[in-house]
Amino acid sequence: MNKLISFLFNLIPSQVVYAHCDVPCGIYDPKPAQIAAATVLKMVQKLKEYPEDDLNNRVRAIWTKEEHARKCKEEILILWTDYFKEEHLEKFPDLHEKFWKTAKLCSENKQHVDEEKAQELVKAVDEIAQMFADSKK
Amino acid sequence: MNKLISFLFNLIPSQVVYAHCDVPCGIYDPKPAQIAAATVLKMVQKLKEYPEDDLNNRVRAIWTKEEHARKCKEEILILWTDYFKEEHLEKFPDLHEKFWKTAKLCSENKQHVDEEKAQELVKAVDEIAQMFADSKK
Amino acid sequence: MNKLISFLFNLIPSQVVYAHCDVPCGIYDPKPAQIAAATVLKMVQKLKEYPEDDLNNRVRAIWTKEEHARKCKEEILILWTDYFKEEHLEKFPDLHEKFWKTAKLCSENKQHVDEEKAQELVKAVDEIAQMFADSKK
Amino acid sequence: MNKLISFLFNLIPSQVVYAHCDVPCGIYDPKPAQIAAATVLKMVQKLKEYPEDDLNNRVRAIWTKEEHARKCKEEILILWTDYFKEEHLEKFPDLHEKFWKTAKLCSENKQHVDEEKAQELVKAVDEIAQMFADSKK
Amino acid sequence: MNKLISFLFNLIPSQVVYAHCDVPCGIYDPKPAQIAAATVLKMVQKLKEYPEDDLNNRVRAIWTKEEHARKCKEEILILWTDYFKEEHLEKFPDLHEKFWKTAKLCSENKQHVDEEKAQELVKAVDEIAQMFADSKK
Amino acid sequence: MNKLISFLFNLIPSQVVYAHCDVPCGIYDPKPAQIAAATVLKMVQKLKEYPEDDLNNRVRAIWTKEEHARKCKEEILILWTDYFKEEHLEKFPDLHEKFWKTAKLCSENKQHVDEEKAQELVKAVDEIAQMFADSKK
Repeated sequence: MNKLISFLFNLIPSQVVYAHCDVPCGIYDPKPAQIAAATVLKMVQKLKEYPEDDLNNRVRAIWTKEEHARKCKEEILILWTDYFKEEHLEKFPDLHEKFWKTAKLCSENKQHVDEEKAQELVKAVDEIAQMFADSKK
Repeated sequence: MNKLISFLFNLIPSQVVYAHCDVPCGIYDPKPAQIAAATVLKMVQKLKEYPEDDLNNRVRAIWTKEEHARKCKEEILILWTDYFKEEHLEKFPDLHEKFWKTAKLCSENKQHVDEEKAQELVKAVDEIAQMFADSKK
Repeated sequence: MNKLISFLFNLIPSQVVYAHCDVPCGIYDPKPAQIAAATVLKMVQKLKEYPEDDLNNRVRAIWTKEEHARKCKEEILILWTDYFKEEHLEKFPDLHEKFWKTAKLCSENKQHVDEEKAQELVKAVDEIAQMFADSKK
Repeated sequence: MNKLISFLFNLIPSQVVYAHCDVPCGIYDPKPAQIAAATVLKMVQKLKEYPEDDLNNRVRAIWTKEEHARKCKEEILILWTDYFKEEHLEKFPDLHEKFWKTAKLCSENKQHVDEEKAQELVKAVDEIAQMFADSKK
Repeated sequence: MNKLISFLFNLIPSQVVYAHCDVPCGIYDPKPAQIAAATVLKMVQKLKEYPEDDLNNRVRAIWTKEEHARKCKEEILILWTDYFKEEHLEKFPDLHEKFWKTAKLCSENKQHVDEEKAQELVKAVDEIAQMFADSKK
Repeated sequence: MNKLISFLFNLIPSQVVYAHCDVPCGIYDPKPAQIAAATVLKMVQKLKEYPEDDLNNRVRAIWTKEEHARKCKEEILILWTDYFKEEHLEKFPDLHEKFWKTAKLCSENKQHVDEEKAQELVKAVDEIAQMFADSKK
C-alpha cells in the first residue's frame, strides 16, 4: 500500500508558484489537496485492515477520512474561486464542471468507505493539479 | 441603515427545506449566507462611522468583515457542491457562473472596504436564494 | 420524517431583525439555533435507520449530533447574553430559567440518542424564538 | 503590573474537583476563566504601553483581548449550564443574575479598552470561582 | 476513580506566574496541560465502564480522549517553545528530551486505550509542572 | 519579490514520503511548513508596500502573518514529535536544538515586522526540510 502512495506521489507534477489566502499573497499550490486526497485513500485502506473490535482506531480513521475529505474540498475550492480567472475559461472550457464533480467526490468519500471512490478522488485532484500546471505555460 | 437591512431581509423568500452537512441530512438553507452578506455590508458601514482613532473597533469590524465574507463563501459553496445536482443544470444553465462570481465577490469584499461591492454581494446572494427557491417548484 | 421537519419549520415565526456578533452589529436571529435543534432530531432519527454494521455513518451521525447540540447551545447563549437586556426581565420573568433549561437539554441530547429529548429541544428552542419575536412587539 | 496579576492570582482559591466537557467527565474548574479574564486585563494594559505607531502589536493585543473575552464567556457558561444544577439554586438565589452580568462584562470588554471594566471582569470571575468553591462545602 | 483524580490534582503544585500567548503576555501555566492529561485518563476509564453497545458514548469518549491528548501536547509545547529559554538549559539538561517524550506519550494515548499509558502521561506532565515550578526558584 | 519566492521554492527538495496525522498514516511532508514560512515573509514585504492609511489590508496582513507563523510552528512540531524517532538522534545530534530555535523564530516573527527575521525563518525551515530528506537516505 505504501508503494501505491509513493507511486501516486511520484506522478504529482512539482509546482513552483503558490497562493492560498485572500490577501492575496499569490501563493497557490495544489499539493495540500493532493495530500488530503491521499489521506482519504489511506484511511479507507486502514479501515479494511483494523480488526472489527478495534473501535478506537476505526473511529479515528473514520474521523480522519471525514476531516481530509473536507480539507480536500476546501483546498480545491480555493483554487477554483481565487486562482482561476475569466481568462482561463477559454483554455479550460470544462473548468467549472471539473471542480464541481471533484467537490462532489469529496462528499461521496465522506459517506462511503469505498477504495474505488477514494482512488477516483486521488485521480480527479491530480487532474486539477495538471490543469493548474498547464495554466502556467 | 437599519431600515436598509430590514428592507433587504424582507425581500428574502422564506424556505422550508434545509440541508447543510454532508451526512447528508437534507437540511439546506440559503439564510446563513444571506446573514453573512448582510454582516459584511454592516461592517463596511460601521467602518465609515467609527472615528479614525478608535483602533479597537476598526480592527474588530475589519476582522468581522473578513470572517463573514469567508463564511458567506463557505455557505454558498455548500449549496453549489452538495445541494445542486446534475438535474438542475438544465433549468439553471448559468449555475456554475453564478456561484463562481459570487464567491469571487466574497474575496473582493475582504480586500476592500467598499459599500457598493458589499451591496453587490448582498444582491448576488439573494439571487442564489431565489435560484434555490425556484429549484423547489 | 421529512414531513415532521417541514411541519416544525412552518411553525417558525419569520424574523426581520438580526444580531449575532459582539461588534455589536444588531443582527440577531434565532433561526441558526432552530436549524441546529432540527439537525439533532434528524441525527437521532438517522441513528435508528442505519444498519447496525454501518459504523461509518453511525459515527458520523453521532458526531453531527454532538456538533449541532453544541452549536444550538452556543446560538441560544448569544441571544441570552447579548440580545436580552435588563429591560426584558420584567416582560419575561422566566428568561434565565428558560435559557438555562434549554442549554441543559443540549447537553442531554449529546449524552443520549433519544427522540423524545430531541423533540423537547426543538420545542424549547421554538419557545425561545417566540420569546424573541414577542420582545420586538 | 505583574505584581497586580500575582496578587490577583494569589486570591484565587485552589480547587480539586474538575469537569469541563459534556461527556460528562466530572472535571470542572473555574481557573481557565480566571486566566482568560487576567489576559483581558493584561491586554488593556499593554495597549496603553505600546507606542501609537506599533500597529503590529496593537492589532495583536486587540485580537488577544477579543479572543480571551470570548473564551472567558465560554468557560463561565460551561459552569453555568453544566456544573450548576437545580439543587444549587436555593443556596445561590442570584446564580443566574451573576452569570448573566459576567457574560455581559465579557462583551463590554470586547467593545472597549477600559482598565476599570477589565478589573470588574477579573473580580466578577473571582466571585464565580468563590461560588463554585462554596458549592463544594 | 474520582478519588484517584482528586489525589492526582492534590499533588499539583500551585503556580502564581502565567503566560500562554505569543503577545507575549507573560501568563504561563502548566495546569491546562494537567487537566488535559487527567481527562485522557478519565476517558480511558470511561471506555472500560460503558457497555459494549453504547456506541454513542464510546465514540464520544474516544473523541474526547483524542481532543485532550491533542490539547495536552499543544499546551506543553507552548511551555517548551515560549516559556523555557536558553538560560534554563543548564539547570535542566534533559529539558528537550523530557518534552519530546511527553509529546510522544500524547500520540500514544491517541492510538491506544491503555490505562497504564494514560497514567504515564499524567505523571510526565506533573514532572513538567514541577520543572516549571523549579524554574521560578 | 515574486522572483525571490520562486527562487526559494526552487531550492526546496522534493519529497515522496508523507505523514501528518496521529492515526498514524505515515504521510509526512515539510512543505506545508515551508509554504507557511514563505507566507510570513510575503506578509512582511506587503506591510512595507501598503500605504499607511490602508488599515484594512495592513490589519489583514498582520493577521495572516500571525496565523501562518502559528501554522509554521504547528507543522514543524508535528515532524519533531511524530516523525523523528529515537533512532534519528544519533544521525542528527542537534535535532532538538534545531526545532526549538525554529519554533522560537516563529514567535519572534509574530512579535515583529522584520524582513531579516522572516528570511531567517524561511532558511531554518528549509534546513529542517533538508534534515527530513537526509533521514530518508
